[in-house]
Amino acid sequence: MLAGLMQPSPLSIASLIEFADRFHGSTELVTRTVEGPIHRYTYHDAHRRAKMLANALAALGLHSGDRIGTLAWNVHRHFELYFAVSGMGAVLHTINPRLFAEQIVYIVNHAEDRWIFVDLTFVPLLERLAEHLQSVAGYVIMTDEASMPETSLPNARCYETLLAEQSAEYSWPVLDETCASSLCYTSGTTGNPKGVLYSHRSTVLHSFCVCAADGLAVSSREVILPVVPMFHANAWGVAYAAPMSGAKLVLPGAKMDGASIFELLHDERVTLTLGVPTVWLMLLDYCESSGQALSHLERVVIGGAAAPRSMIERFERDHDVEVIHAWGMTEMSPLGTVCNLLPKHATLDAEARLDLKVKQGRPVYGVDLKITDDENHELPRDGRAFGRLKVRGPWITNGYFRGEGGAVLDDEQWFDTGDVSTLDPDGFMQITDRSKDVIKSGGEWISSIDLENHAIGHPAVAEAAVIAVPHPKWSERPLLVVRTRENATVTREEILAWMAQKLAKWQVPDDVVFVDALPHTATGKIRKLELRQQFAEHQLPDED
Amino acid sequence: MLAGLMQPSPLSIASLIEFADRFHGSTELVTRTVEGPIHRYTYHDAHRRAKMLANALAALGLHSGDRIGTLAWNVHRHFELYFAVSGMGAVLHTINPRLFAEQIVYIVNHAEDRWIFVDLTFVPLLERLAEHLQSVAGYVIMTDEASMPETSLPNARCYETLLAEQSAEYSWPVLDETCASSLCYTSGTTGNPKGVLYSHRSTVLHSFCVCAADGLAVSSREVILPVVPMFHANAWGVAYAAPMSGAKLVLPGAKMDGASIFELLHDERVTLTLGVPTVWLMLLDYCESSGQALSHLERVVIGGAAAPRSMIERFERDHDVEVIHAWGMTEMSPLGTVCNLLPKHATLDAEARLDLKVKQGRPVYGVDLKITDDENHELPRDGRAFGRLKVRGPWITNGYFRGEGGAVLDDEQWFDTGDVSTLDPDGFMQITDRSKDVIKSGGEWISSIDLENHAIGHPAVAEAAVIAVPHPKWSERPLLVVRTRENATVTREEILAWMAQKLAKWQVPDDVVFVDALPHTATGKIRKLELRQQFAEHQLPDED
Repeated sequence: MLAGLMQPSPLSIASLIEFADRFHGSTELVTRTVEGPIHRYTYHDAHRRAKMLANALAALGLHSGDRIGTLAWNVHRHFELYFAVSGMGAVLHTINPRLFAEQIVYIVNHAEDRWIFVDLTFVPLLERLAEHLQSVAGYVIMTDEASMPETSLPNARCYETLLAEQSAEYSWPVLDETCASSLCYTSGTTGNPKGVLYSHRSTVLHSFCVCAADGLAVSSREVILPVVPMFHANAWGVAYAAPMSGAKLVLPGAKMDGASIFELLHDERVTLTLGVPTVWLMLLDYCESSGQALSHLERVVIGGAAAPRSMIERFERDHDVEVIHAWGMTEMSPLGTVCNLLPKHATLDAEARLDLKVKQGRPVYGVDLKITDDENHELPRDGRAFGRLKVRGPWITNGYFRGEGGAVLDDEQWFDTGDVSTLDPDGFMQITDRSKDVIKSGGEWISSIDLENHAIGHPAVAEAAVIAVPHPKWSERPLLVVRTRENATVTREEILAWMAQKLAKWQVPDDVVFVDALPHTATGKIRKLELRQQFAEHQLPDED
Repeated sequence: MLAGLMQPSPLSIASLIEFADRFHGSTELVTRTVEGPIHRYTYHDAHRRAKMLANALAALGLHSGDRIGTLAWNVHRHFELYFAVSGMGAVLHTINPRLFAEQIVYIVNHAEDRWIFVDLTFVPLLERLAEHLQSVAGYVIMTDEASMPETSLPNARCYETLLAEQSAEYSWPVLDETCASSLCYTSGTTGNPKGVLYSHRSTVLHSFCVCAADGLAVSSREVILPVVPMFHANAWGVAYAAPMSGAKLVLPGAKMDGASIFELLHDERVTLTLGVPTVWLMLLDYCESSGQALSHLERVVIGGAAAPRSMIERFERDHDVEVIHAWGMTEMSPLGTVCNLLPKHATLDAEARLDLKVKQGRPVYGVDLKITDDENHELPRDGRAFGRLKVRGPWITNGYFRGEGGAVLDDEQWFDTGDVSTLDPDGFMQITDRSKDVIKSGGEWISSIDLENHAIGHPAVAEAAVIAVPHPKWSERPLLVVRTRENATVTREEILAWMAQKLAKWQVPDDVVFVDALPHTATGKIRKLELRQQFAEHQLPDED
C-alpha cells in the first residue's frame, strides 16, 4: 500500500471546543438554569471551565475509559461535561431520567458508572436509587454552594466548589480516534435497555453531517435552541455541531412548556430549534392562545416521532417557519435522514410539498440505506414497496455495550433498524411501521401505523392500536384495539365501516375490541408486545 | 483503551460517487466538451462509466498504488477518472498543463506515471515531451473514435473504445482510508515542483468541509460550475463535494472566456461558481460590454489570489451575487479559510462589509491556524500584528512525495504556509505577504504587497514589485521596481512622493528603479527571487 502523506490528526471531541474557543471565543452560550436565572457566558469561558472540570475529574481519581453518568437537563454545566469527560478520555454516560427507576438502576450498574453528575431536579430520584447503584463512588450536584440541597446521597459534592479548586491549565490528551467517548442506552420497549458506545471518530464525523448544508446546516450564523435533551441521543448532535461551527447555543434547562420555550426563542432571537412533536404542539398552542408569532425563528427540526401534517402546516403557514423533518435513532448517533427538498420541488404547490415534507427525508452522505424483504432481498426504490429499513455507515453502531443482543450486523455491515419504510427514486424515505408491528397477511404486509392513523380520525376514537393476531389461512390478520373518547359511543360495525371507506378490503381489520386503557412505555409509546400477549388467544370472527 | 462500538467503515472516494448514484442518480452533469458540443448525463451514468473505466485500468495492468497522470480540462471524462483511478486503489496524478515543459517532464518522471490520460488539446504538448517520459507505458486520448487525431504518441488508445470493451460490473475494493488517492504538484516558484500526496481520508474529510454550511455550503440545491481547474488542487474539492451532496455539476471544458462562461451560467441556471480573479475579470467585462446580468447566479467563490475590492463590489452591486473570498493551498487540499460573515456583521454598511470581504476569511473546523514571529512565538490575534501563517489539520500535508524538501512540520505538527498574515479576534485572516518577500527593517516587517498595491495606483505605473535589499543599519530596506505604462513618464522622486502620501515614513521604499520588463513564473506571478538576485548589489541612496 502506498500511504498518503497527510497529517494523521485524530478526530477528537476536545478539538471541537478548542476550535470554538480559538475562533468563536466571544460567541455566547445562554442557559435557563435549573436554579432559575438566565446564565450567559462564551465559548472561551466554557472551554476554560471544561479544562478545570477535566482537572477535577482527574483529582477524583477518574481515568481514561471510566464511565461517568449524568442525569441532567440541557444546561451549561452539562455542556462542560460533554467536553471534559470525553476530552480527558473517559466515557460520558448520559442517563435518560424518564426511564423507569428499575431501568436506571440497571443501566448504571451495567455501565459501571464511577461517579454521577446530577441536576438539582433529579437528586430526590437518585436518593431513592442510590443504595442499588453498586459502582458509584460519589455524586456531584450540578449547582453552586448557595443552592446545595440537604441530601442523603453518599459522598455528595458541589459542582462549582469542585471546579473552584482547579486550575484552567490543562492539555487535552491525544486519543486514538476510535476510543469510546460516550454511552447512551436505548429506551428498550422490550427487554433491558442496551448501550450504544460512541467513539470520538463517530462523533466528529456525525457532527460534519449535522453541519452539512444538506444535513441540518448548522453554521456560525445560527442561534440554536435544542429542546431535544442532551440526555438522549446527544441532543441530535447539536451540542457538538454548535462548537464545530461557532453557532450560539441557547439551552432551555428544565422548562419545556410553551411559554418558556417561546420566551427563549424570542428573547435570544433563535433561528433554529430542534425537538419532538409533543414539544411543538405545546409551543404552537401557546402561540395561538396568546396571539403571538415566532418572529426570528427560521427553521424547526422535528424528529423522534413522525411530524403530523397539520403541525408542519401550522409552522409554515402561521409562522413562516420552515419545517425540517428528520429521522434517526440512538444507534445512529442519531442522524439518518433529513427532509430537505430538491430544486425540482420548488414549483410544487402547498399540498404536494406537504406530501413530501411528511416523509422522513433523504440520507445524508455517510448513511447508506436500503429496504429489504424478510429474505434480505433489496426492494425497489419506487416509493410504494415497503420493507425492513437497513442502514450502515461510520456513525452507526457495530454492536451494543458488553455484547448485549449479540451480533447486530449482517455480513455486509447492514444494521436492521427495526423500522419498515418506503424509499422513493430520489431517496426520500418514509417510515410506515415498526417491523415487529407490521401485519403479515398472506404474503402482503399491512402497516399497523396506517391503520391506526385511519382509526384515530374517527371522532369517537381517543387512542388506537393495531396488532397482528394469528390466522389459520392468512397467517396473520390485523386486530384493532380502541379506547373511545369519554361519553362517546360507537359500535364495532361503525368503526369497521369507517375503516373500509379508506382502505383496501384486505387491509381492513378483522375485528375491533374496546378497552378502558392501553399500556404505555416510559416514553409514552404503546406497548404492543403486551397487547399481543393479551390478545394472543383472541378469536377473530369467522368470515372470508 | 476502551474502544467505541461504531462501524469501522473506512472513508473512501468511491463511496462519494456510490452515494450520488444511489440517492441522486438522476441529477445531471453537464460538460462543454473539448470536441465542441454540450454533453449531458447523470450521476448514475457517471458511476456506471467510472466502473467500466476501473475495469479498463485493470485490463491495462494497473494496480493499487500506481500513478496515473491526467492532462485534462474540467470535463466529464476527467470526472470519471477522479473516481475510477482512486476508487480502484491507484493514484490520480493531475498534471497542470500550464507548467513549463521541463517541469512537466520532471513531475511525470518523479511521479513515475504509468499511463497518461490526455485531452485532445494537450496531445501536441505531450508529443513534444513523450521521448523524455521514462515511466509511461501508454497514452489514452480522452475522446471517441471519430475524433481521434493522428498522433506520434507511442501506444495511444481511444478513451471511448477502451470503455466500450468493458463491463460495468465492478465492486470498489475496500481500501485503508490512509492510502494514497491522488497527487498534485505545487507550481514551485523556486526549485522543482513538489508532490502533495492526498489520501482517501483527507479527501473525504476535506469534502465535508466544502459541504459545511460554514465552508462552501455545497448542497443538493446547488448547480455548480467550477471554473477552477480539476488539474490543480482538486478544483478546490468541488469534484468530490458535488457527488457527496448530489449537486448538479456544470463543467466548462477548455473555454474560459467571458462569453462561454456566461453562456453556461445562464443556460444551466448555475447558482454557485468558483475560480481565480482573472477569470472573473473576463466575465464581468463581458457582462458590462454586452449589457447582460448574471441572473441565476447566487454565489461566487474567489480564491487562488486575493480578490480585489473592486471585483467584490462589481459582483455584489451590479449583479447581486454574493462574493465568498477563500484561501488555501495545494498542501491544504486546498481549503483553509472562507470569508463568511458573522451575524454581528449584518448591520455593517457597504464599505465596512467590504473591509471584511477583502480578507481571506475564517478557518473552517478541521483547519487550525496561528501566526508567529521568526522565533515561533505566537503573535496576538488583534487584526494588526502580522507574522508567519502556520496551519495544521487532517487535510494538510505531512511531507512531500519521496521526501522532497525534508521535514515540513514542526514538533507540534504546524506547517509553515510561507504566507504572512494578520488574524483578528473573530478569526478573520488576511494575507499581507509571502514570508520570503516581506522586508525586515529594523525589527519591523514591511509588506511588499502593501507597497506594490500603493505603487500600482499611480497612473504611470503598469506593474510594480517590491523587494528587500541589504542595508547596513536596518538590515533590509524596500526597493521598488517599476515598469511604466507605454508613453508614460514619471520620475523616481514623483513615485516616492506618491508613496509617502499613503505610507508611514519608515515604510516608504528607499529607492525606485525602472525596468522594461519584470520576470514571471508559468502561472503569471512575478519571480521575486530573480529580482532579488538581479538587485542584490543595488546601492541604496545614502540617506537615513
